[in-house]
Amino acid sequence: MLRQKINVALIGYGYWGPNLLRNLKNRPECNVAYVCDRSAEQLSNVSDHYPEQPVTQDFNQVVGDPDVDALVIATPISTHYHLAMRAIEAGKHVLVEKPLTDSVQDAKAMVQAAAKRRLVLMVGHTFLFSPPVRKIKEIIDSGDLGDIYYVTTSRVNPGLHQNDASVVSDVDVIWDLAPHDIAMLLYWLGEEPDTVHACGRGCMRADVPDVAFINAGFPSGAIAEIHLSWLSPVKIRRTMIVGGKKVIIYDDTESIEKVRVFEHGAEFRENESFGEFLWSYRTGDVYAPRLENYEPLAVEIKHFLDCILSGANPITDGYSGLQVVRALEMANKSLLRSNNYIQEVS
Amino acid sequence: MLRQKINVALIGYGYWGPNLLRNLKNRPECNVAYVCDRSAEQLSNVSDHYPEQPVTQDFNQVVGDPDVDALVIATPISTHYHLAMRAIEAGKHVLVEKPLTDSVQDAKAMVQAAAKRRLVLMVGHTFLFSPPVRKIKEIIDSGDLGDIYYVTTSRVNPGLHQNDASVVSDVDVIWDLAPHDIAMLLYWLGEEPDTVHACGRGCMRADVPDVAFINAGFPSGAIAEIHLSWLSPVKIRRTMIVGGKKVIIYDDTESIEKVRVFEHGAEFRENESFGEFLWSYRTGDVYAPRLENYEPLAVEIKHFLDCILSGANPITDGYSGLQVVRALEMANKSLLRSNNYIQEVS
Amino acid sequence: MLRQKINVALIGYGYWGPNLLRNLKNRPECNVAYVCDRSAEQLSNVSDHYPEQPVTQDFNQVVGDPDVDALVIATPISTHYHLAMRAIEAGKHVLVEKPLTDSVQDAKAMVQAAAKRRLVLMVGHTFLFSPPVRKIKEIIDSGDLGDIYYVTTSRVNPGLHQNDASVVSDVDVIWDLAPHDIAMLLYWLGEEPDTVHACGRGCMRADVPDVAFINAGFPSGAIAEIHLSWLSPVKIRRTMIVGGKKVIIYDDTESIEKVRVFEHGAEFRENESFGEFLWSYRTGDVYAPRLENYEPLAVEIKHFLDCILSGANPITDGYSGLQVVRALEMANKSLLRSNNYIQEVS
Amino acid sequence: MLRQKINVALIGYGYWGPNLLRNLKNRPECNVAYVCDRSAEQLSNVSDHYPEQPVTQDFNQVVGDPDVDALVIATPISTHYHLAMRAIEAGKHVLVEKPLTDSVQDAKAMVQAAAKRRLVLMVGHTFLFSPPVRKIKEIIDSGDLGDIYYVTTSRVNPGLHQNDASVVSDVDVIWDLAPHDIAMLLYWLGEEPDTVHACGRGCMRADVPDVAFINAGFPSGAIAEIHLSWLSPVKIRRTMIVGGKKVIIYDDTESIEKVRVFEHGAEFRENESFGEFLWSYRTGDVYAPRLENYEPLAVEIKHFLDCILSGANPITDGYSGLQVVRALEMANKSLLRSNNYIQEVS
Repeated sequence: MLRQKINVALIGYGYWGPNLLRNLKNRPECNVAYVCDRSAEQLSNVSDHYPEQPVTQDFNQVVGDPDVDALVIATPISTHYHLAMRAIEAGKHVLVEKPLTDSVQDAKAMVQAAAKRRLVLMVGHTFLFSPPVRKIKEIIDSGDLGDIYYVTTSRVNPGLHQNDASVVSDVDVIWDLAPHDIAMLLYWLGEEPDTVHACGRGCMRADVPDVAFINAGFPSGAIAEIHLSWLSPVKIRRTMIVGGKKVIIYDDTESIEKVRVFEHGAEFRENESFGEFLWSYRTGDVYAPRLENYEPLAVEIKHFLDCILSGANPITDGYSGLQVVRALEMANKSLLRSNNYIQEVS
Repeated sequence: MLRQKINVALIGYGYWGPNLLRNLKNRPECNVAYVCDRSAEQLSNVSDHYPEQPVTQDFNQVVGDPDVDALVIATPISTHYHLAMRAIEAGKHVLVEKPLTDSVQDAKAMVQAAAKRRLVLMVGHTFLFSPPVRKIKEIIDSGDLGDIYYVTTSRVNPGLHQNDASVVSDVDVIWDLAPHDIAMLLYWLGEEPDTVHACGRGCMRADVPDVAFINAGFPSGAIAEIHLSWLSPVKIRRTMIVGGKKVIIYDDTESIEKVRVFEHGAEFRENESFGEFLWSYRTGDVYAPRLENYEPLAVEIKHFLDCILSGANPITDGYSGLQVVRALEMANKSLLRSNNYIQEVS
Repeated sequence: MLRQKINVALIGYGYWGPNLLRNLKNRPECNVAYVCDRSAEQLSNVSDHYPEQPVTQDFNQVVGDPDVDALVIATPISTHYHLAMRAIEAGKHVLVEKPLTDSVQDAKAMVQAAAKRRLVLMVGHTFLFSPPVRKIKEIIDSGDLGDIYYVTTSRVNPGLHQNDASVVSDVDVIWDLAPHDIAMLLYWLGEEPDTVHACGRGCMRADVPDVAFINAGFPSGAIAEIHLSWLSPVKIRRTMIVGGKKVIIYDDTESIEKVRVFEHGAEFRENESFGEFLWSYRTGDVYAPRLENYEPLAVEIKHFLDCILSGANPITDGYSGLQVVRALEMANKSLLRSNNYIQEVS
Repeated sequence: MLRQKINVALIGYGYWGPNLLRNLKNRPECNVAYVCDRSAEQLSNVSDHYPEQPVTQDFNQVVGDPDVDALVIATPISTHYHLAMRAIEAGKHVLVEKPLTDSVQDAKAMVQAAAKRRLVLMVGHTFLFSPPVRKIKEIIDSGDLGDIYYVTTSRVNPGLHQNDASVVSDVDVIWDLAPHDIAMLLYWLGEEPDTVHACGRGCMRADVPDVAFINAGFPSGAIAEIHLSWLSPVKIRRTMIVGGKKVIIYDDTESIEKVRVFEHGAEFRENESFGEFLWSYRTGDVYAPRLENYEPLAVEIKHFLDCILSGANPITDGYSGLQVVRALEMANKSLLRSNNYIQEVS
């Protein structure tokens, strides 16, 4: 006997909606029961491309339909908690777009609610399914880098990340861009930061930070620096991971050699007779591993469906989403502590 | 009647010594009275190249020689104060290598002593005499950039800046690398930071910071981020200056197009009917001005001699050197405030 | 009264087919009467995306339908002549994918046939509708460059340009890649080459050239070098246009600054007293003009429809397509003249 | 008993002279007996830096001095033959700057004369002593690349290579720049080209070619393309060596990763059922080997002295210099064959 397909509803058809819908439709084990959006105009876009696709403006209809197994929620951040909780309470599995929520408290409630009902709660940190980020995780886990000393990352754009969604409502540069970097950092390092400091500024409008620098410290001793901006004329996606043995430079704007591994030649020797420290650096080989070529979102969607079928815990489960939100909240608090977002020192 | 030449003594013949000596010798208005170093070996290097050049290991001889008009001091930082004060008290003009001193208090004393005797006190912030840094100052002063919103700068090296002077004694990554960036920032912005936060770490040795991130806030509202490291396998010299109208990207590792000016297309409009903010970004023209081609140190040395002759105040006078030291000291204090150089937030 | 729409049939639904269909459907003045392909599988792809779109495997049905006004032919090169002539004879306007045909003789016949019936014959040199190529034409025509001295261009790929159409049948590296470069050269320079030399080789299979170097000379004195390869691990799209006053570097792999204009500082002076020539070069300003952001194919399709409505001659008319084929044929003959594609000299 | 030092005379103190002199003086087994130049002004530059160095304007004095063992000749190309033959006939070993001569005939006579007297005749192809060129030779010889399919190389400058020697007398762009590339090609491939075609043009002055494209074919089947220009606003030093298994990209303007090795994924399969060829390309790992860090000229000078002492044949012996001259002459003839340096085809 053939297994029934998983009935999935897509909630929200904005910037990311077409990609989610196309990938859901590509999975043979999935049936897209509904596309739901408050805007009739957005739904007419769905119908233009997929005339047979059932659509609705009524979330209650979706969540009340007993045949719906799972929801993919791709709505503005401030609505995540409410919509996801309604779904969980109705016994649906949920994939929520990143970040999971806009507060740690709400995130905790969601994680608990899903756990209680043994439902899959996953957050759409798509980058963690991308070939370069996976390859870096593999290299770190192999021990090749040695201890991770520090990580720097720049994610700067001409404009918002969600650049056709140019309406700024519940988002600033940290909530728009940092979820990616923080999710990657936590994934690679396998730990949460215990200290976070942020400095930033609303340049275009004083009340909406559009540039920020986040420093984070981790229990292992690793530190990280995240540079975020909507005001750069060039797009920069550059991460350096400095370990005791090797260094990774990951540039997502490169077409090949996105990930390069440098042999690390830093050395510190004590000159015993003089009590001095001799510092030396030797440049070594550089290696750019071949990366697989697939669409990260396709793997993410398949993973969500696999977890529903198997009951396994997603790599980007609700708890990992909560950890990202916790770091975002820490950055946000630090940013707001002083008047113009920067801390007095002397 | 012909004017007498200015008699200059060069104190310290380490990493930077040969460049200073060559440039001093190239000036027709200058006579190098002495090269002075504690090491006989270093002095023999002088004699190999310039057999007729008087050399000495005795600083007292130099400072006590009434024919010596000026000293160029290129010794380790911790000795700057003592040597420069001896020179000033003996009535000599002084050019001190960067940074001026290792404490604000000493810097203040030097500035006062030189002022009292109407002597030239200059600090060797050579970058401020370089074609790209000058061109950027010119563009900023023309008002083309509009208000300066923020500046980011990366100065990361495989190893120390003074890379043949690999003996780490009185220097960490901030005191080794940041004087360049801070001097440029103060020169471009025309103001001192009122807040400084630093985060960093000693990766190779816990007690010697070899990576640091400095955030600075300025009275105008501008903020800056400085990224410093001895642990990068690649050399990065990249500065972005984001203004309200235009953006400058300055990459000192480029052979041409070191300075590029981007038309800035960020815009924030209020959507009146909905109370929303619409954010847009338009990419514009890019322009890389031709830069003059000269050796910055040659211009610096000429400027020092010119100021001695004319009595004018140097661009990089003692007070500007003091301002740089003040910012360095603020960064240092911030770095040391918490155990592992990072600040608790939540 | 509303004007009738132009009924267009798309012939061939391979590599480029989906882009052509999407752009045809986006034009309000156009109705896609048929999509025609010999492969039922390809047609089912059409139906999957556009269930209401009429499709057919029968070319005769299309060409015999009196309601069809125009054909867009995107089939393998060797079929262009036969299909386009059938269409012209049936009184249809035709847009043929590049290159127009595989022989000058056939191209001439097509041009004559279309002229006789006053039908639009256009060739799909899409690059000539792209923002950077247009901007370069504008700069050249303004006289800013001065006389064009020479042009170099590299179009090298990991694999074929039509990379999902990896079946090599009637194409070698010259016929696959050079149509782009030759069309651009002729467009920019406004003249055809009078001499062409080609050197190349079948590396992977001796009978299918996969690397070639073409040199061309133009009546104005300009010379050009075109480097083509399927064997490069990196994709290179780099063109340098050297004029007497300025130089353009066009790199199509750049995301911004695709087109940069360099002030040209070469100078040759006669040293009269010695009868010598003094050569000097001065680096000048660099300028990267803002480029518009649109899909070239959309403009091309609109241009085809406009020409049908107005009777105007297309920018990429049949004759310009013939000129490109003539240069391709010259290159081909030169390549084949000697045994291993290279010419004896001494 | 201590061995006597080798007495070397340096003939010609122009662009390259100071580097040669410094490196000769650095060798303990060498004594610089004379620096000889026709210009008193050039000789005074020697004396400024090395007051004790014997200098002379009289070549006859040098060649007639029985204590002189060897000559390093760094004069204009047209004088190489005459000066070197005088030296050889006087029983001196000779290192001649590149290219060896300006004609194959003269080069042959020099090689024979030196062989007859068992004297070392070496040509200063310094690049063959450089770390990246050596590393590439090592990789090719290891068989890692597989068969060499083709090589492309660009050597384009803003102005002449010998850029402070801006007096153009006996040199065009081929004789100025191509000796480097041809020497490297012959060294790497281990064979001479049997066919050479050149296309070029005098842009600034019709009679002095300042841009040229050279195509060469080798007995093994390898082909090469060399792009030379004095008219490029940017300096390009980029070589691609495409083999059957791997590809090397060598960019001499990079500070690290000058040499990168790409796994080569080109494949051509016959689709048996259809008689078609399927072409595919897979991107693989990239590897940038660590390069040693030394001055190539230092190794070259040491090699010359070693060969004098041991009687060994230099890597860049007279015959290899002759081979380079032969290829230059072929290129030159090809360039001059047609009126405007390009060959009619159809």
